[in-house]
This record gives sequence, structure tokens and C-alpha cells, in this order.
Amino acid sequence: MSALPMTSSTALNPPLDTNLWSQNHLARVEQALSLWVGDGAPAGLGDAMRYAVLDGGKRLRPLLVLAAYEGARSGSSDSTAPEGGAVQAALDEAALRAACAVELIHAYSLVHDDMPCMDNDVLRRGKPTVHVQFGEAQALLAGDALQAFAFELLTPDNTLIPAATQAALCRLLARAAGSAGMAGGQAIDLASVGVALTEAQLRQMHRLKTGALLQGSVLMGALCGHAAPAAYQALSDYGAAMGLAFQVVDDILDVVADSATLGKTAGKDAAADKPTYVSLLGLERAQAYAQELLAEAHAALGRSGLPDTRALAALADMVVRRSH
Amino acid sequence: MSALPMTSSTALNPPLDTNLWSQNHLARVEQALSLWVGDGAPAGLGDAMRYAVLDGGKRLRPLLVLAAYEGARSGSSDSTAPEGGAVQAALDEAALRAACAVELIHAYSLVHDDMPCMDNDVLRRGKPTVHVQFGEAQALLAGDALQAFAFELLTPDNTLIPAATQAALCRLLARAAGSAGMAGGQAIDLASVGVALTEAQLRQMHRLKTGALLQGSVLMGALCGHAAPAAYQALSDYGAAMGLAFQVVDDILDVVADSATLGKTAGKDAAADKPTYVSLLGLERAQAYAQELLAEAHAALGRSGLPDTRALAALADMVVRRSH
Repeated sequence: MSALPMTSSTALNPPLDTNLWSQNHLARVEQALSLWVGDGAPAGLGDAMRYAVLDGGKRLRPLLVLAAYEGARSGSSDSTAPEGGAVQAALDEAALRAACAVELIHAYSLVHDDMPCMDNDVLRRGKPTVHVQFGEAQALLAGDALQAFAFELLTPDNTLIPAATQAALCRLLARAAGSAGMAGGQAIDLASVGVALTEAQLRQMHRLKTGALLQGSVLMGALCGHAAPAAYQALSDYGAAMGLAFQVVDDILDVVADSATLGKTAGKDAAADKPTYVSLLGLERAQAYAQELLAEAHAALGRSGLPDTRALAALADMVVRRSH
Repeated sequence: MSALPMTSSTALNPPLDTNLWSQNHLARVEQALSLWVGDGAPAGLGDAMRYAVLDGGKRLRPLLVLAAYEGARSGSSDSTAPEGGAVQAALDEAALRAACAVELIHAYSLVHDDMPCMDNDVLRRGKPTVHVQFGEAQALLAGDALQAFAFELLTPDNTLIPAATQAALCRLLARAAGSAGMAGGQAIDLASVGVALTEAQLRQMHRLKTGALLQGSVLMGALCGHAAPAAYQALSDYGAAMGLAFQVVDDILDVVADSATLGKTAGKDAAADKPTYVSLLGLERAQAYAQELLAEAHAALGRSGLPDTRALAALADMVVRRSH
């Protein structure tokens, strides 16, 4: 990410050094994941869990959590009050735990998605997939354990994170990950191979398959930051538009990029006869659609009323402009 | 289950009609599961989820939740106070949701465990396993969605169930299901095929693989029933002994029962060269060990100080005396 020109939603703030912001926040996420993932697991399982999660990935979802958290905090009436440092630290910890939890859900879904009975993929983030490296049984278990661990991370004992926040984070994550979210979208995807979908059906599939967890990341951050209802709704709209844009761009990259750039097998959707935005709309219209969705995301940030949504704006730009 | 003679822990109460108790509570669990599981899921996925959960299974874990809940309530200072019916209803609802949630975790673990890359089993509860019926990909997704749904069930919106209860239930379930619980035990199991384990190693494997979720069921019920710390600890001890007894008996049944009685493939542990209590101790000593653990479970109930632990006592008896 590079520095961005100011938009209407960031008019009161100087341009954000998005590279620096991103580096700082990524460092916190990587450190926390490295500390937590696989801790206390039997050796083989812990190795597979760490392999699946560490040292790879753009960490888009954790960054969305943290950006939404900071955006919500910037508009919170208590953000400048001289409240106890312990309360602030508890909110920060909740956001960091939420950031790691969504990444664990994402990582587990990739492990299971790559397995022979699903996409049968051997390359992920430029490395052998988990089942290639550790065997199918261990990959299955590692995915299962990562999902459970996401909810464990959200419910620490002996913490100042309020129980209401813990329960609400679990609620958001479970819905985003489950049959009315990510897993549901994958099931629709499974049933759609070789089937002609309408644009509405394709949108519904992606709204669940990738959109739900991306939007859920934004909502979890907004929750930790105590966003007011109107701001929460605007951030929800931002998450929906950005999540759909992510998938449209994914479909475009599957066609225009090569495997080395993607770090995974390119062209596999077309090879598997899966419906995509490119197959449905053609390349040019799909690219235009991604730009429309980006504009929608920015507009939602504008009406959030939050003073500082620069990081969220930058992340939406990154989603649409990325090359992998 | 049949009516049991009174033990020291039930001296103040008449014998429990365990058949009636069990029927009443099973009916509530079945009704709730039938109402909730697969609701809102895409058709194929919802069908697989319902197939995996409904119309089968002893529902031991849900019954443990409800028995522990009622036991804890019997000793709670507020159990006879004229508190609001709404509060009591919220506690009842929390226990029922917890009962269903542990069954969802159990059901998902069976779906994944039966898959070709794990035990490759085709028969479960007398029916074709989920991957045989719906295909491997759908079975993988159904298991994943069931795990997420367990946490969704524990965190309802618009409820009187306190957030602290919701968060604590998620904490207990995530730990029981994850890498330091059920999934961890399965990983040790995976690594133990053809390996000579000591009794301590075998106990540790089973403490995680089946014991953690059985004990977790008891603890979730105790939590919903507001058990005092001493009673909570005694119920935890009960859960540990009963959980281990369950596995010892499982190992015995794998040797002495046939597939028709078990509703699953008999003799598969020996065929897979997996260490069991029977292979380690011999049949007679394994049977004696199960009786010792049953006595331990009853002793723990005795020191719980709870006035009515009849249902928990009956369930422990059922675990050890079952024929399948």
C-alpha cells in the first residue's frame, strides 16, 4: 500500500502513511499469532496449525478488524476521555484477539478447501498445502482445531474484556463462519460447478463465501471500538461492498495473473468450470464493477460520521488494486 | 436405564425413574435440535447437517449437561427462592442450548472421523456415514458448519441469558473441543497407530479425545446451574472419572460386541492396530478398571454436597453398563 490522496472521509486528517500503519499492525498480529497458535497442542497437530497460519498471507481480515476498531474509537465519546489505561488496554486486547480469531477461521477454511475432496490444491502462499506437507488426516484435524481455537481466543479467562464483548464477538464470528456465512457459501459453490448462475445467485454465493467473514471482521472491530449504531451500520455497508469487491477482483486475478504472482494455482476456476464474475460479465465489466463497489465502500465511510477512517479507506483501495 | 437403588448421594430423595427422566429430557433435546440444526443453511448443506445430527445417537452429552444443570440447581441457594420465572426460564434455555451445542461438536467430530482420510468408516448409528450419503466435500463442510453452529447456539441475541454465561459456555466448549481437548486427543490417536503406549499415555489420549467433551458437558451444565466452587470441582471430578470410564467401556465393547449391536463397525481398533485398554490391560482388568472409575464418579457426587445428583449417578451407571 502506498500513501493515498485525501478523500472526503479523511478531510480532517493528514494523509495516512499506510505502509507504516500496515507494518505496525501486521507486526502486532504476527507476534500474537506466533505466541498463541499451537500452544498446548500435541506436537504434530501444533506444527500443522502453525504451518497453516504463520509466515504467509496478507492478513487482510486482521487489518480490517484493527482498522474498524480504530475508526470506531476515533468517533467514540470516550476515546479522548481520561479513562483508565486498563480499560483502554482491555479494548485493545479484545481487538487484537478478534483480529487473530478471524485469521484462524480464514486459515482453517483454506486448509480444508485445499484438501483433495474439495479443490485438491497443492500450492498455497507459495508453499505446499497443509495436507501435502502433513497428510490429509492431520490437515483435517488442524483445520478443526483452528476453528475451535478462534473461539477460545475470544473468551479469555482473567481479563478485563467485558463478558458482553466476548459473547458478542463469538456471535459475530460464529455467524460469519457458519452455514449462513462462509461454510454456506462454500456449499453453494460446491453445488454450482458446471451450473449457469444468474448474477444475483453469484452475488449471494460470494456474499456468504468470502463476504461474510470480511464484513464480520469489520463488525468485530466496530464492536470492540464501541461504534454507535449509525456508525456501526455504515461500517457494515462498507464491509459488504468491500467484501464483494474482494471477490470480483479475485475472479479477475484468476484470469489475468499467473500462479507465481498469486502464490496459488491460477486459472483454476475456469478449469473447474466454476461461475465467476469474469465468466458472467466479461473482463471489462467485471473491472468496472469492482470500481463501483470501491466507490460504494468509500461512500459508506463518508456517511459513518467517524472522524478517521483512513485505514479502512486504504484497505478498500488495496483490495481493489492488489495484484495477488 | 432402569430405576436404581439409592446411594449415599441420593439418600434424601426417592429413587429416580431414570427411564422417565431420560425420555423427558431427550424429547426436549431432540425437539430443539430438530428446530435449530440446518435452519438457514443452503439446502444441500442443511440436509447433511441434519442427517449428521438428527435421528440417532444416545445423546449422552446433552443428558450430562441437563443432569449437571439440575444437580447444581438443587444445591443453589436461589433454587427455591421466589425468583422471577423469566430468570429461571433463561437458565433453562442456557442449559438446553449448551446441551445441543455439545451434541453438535460430538456430531461434527463423528462426521470428520468417519471420512476416508481418517477412519474410513461407512456405517454409523446403523446408517451410511455422512460422506457415503452426501459425498466427502459436503461431509467436510457439514462438520465445519456444525462446529460454528455450536458457538452460534451459545450466543443468542435478544435473550435473558447473561453475557457472562454465554462467554463462559463458549470458553468451556472451545477448550473441550480444541487442540488441548478433543482435536488434540484425535491427533495423539492418529500418531499412536502401531505404537506401544504406556497406560499413562493411553489415559492422556483418552482424557483429551473423549474425556474432555464429556467432562466439558458436565461443567457447562454446572455453570448454567450456578454451582458453587466446591460443587463445581466435585462435578469436574465426576466428569473426569465418568469420561475415562466411557472410553474403557468403549474399548471393551469393541472387542466383545458385534457391529449390529454397536451400530458401527466392531473390532476396528484391533484391526487398525490401535492401542486400547483391552490390549494394554487384558479384558478382565479393563472391566475391573471400569468399575473402579464408576465408584470414583459416585464418590465425587457424594462429596459435591448437592442434594440431588440422582440423574448424574444414573448416567454414570449407564455409561459403564451399556451394551453399545
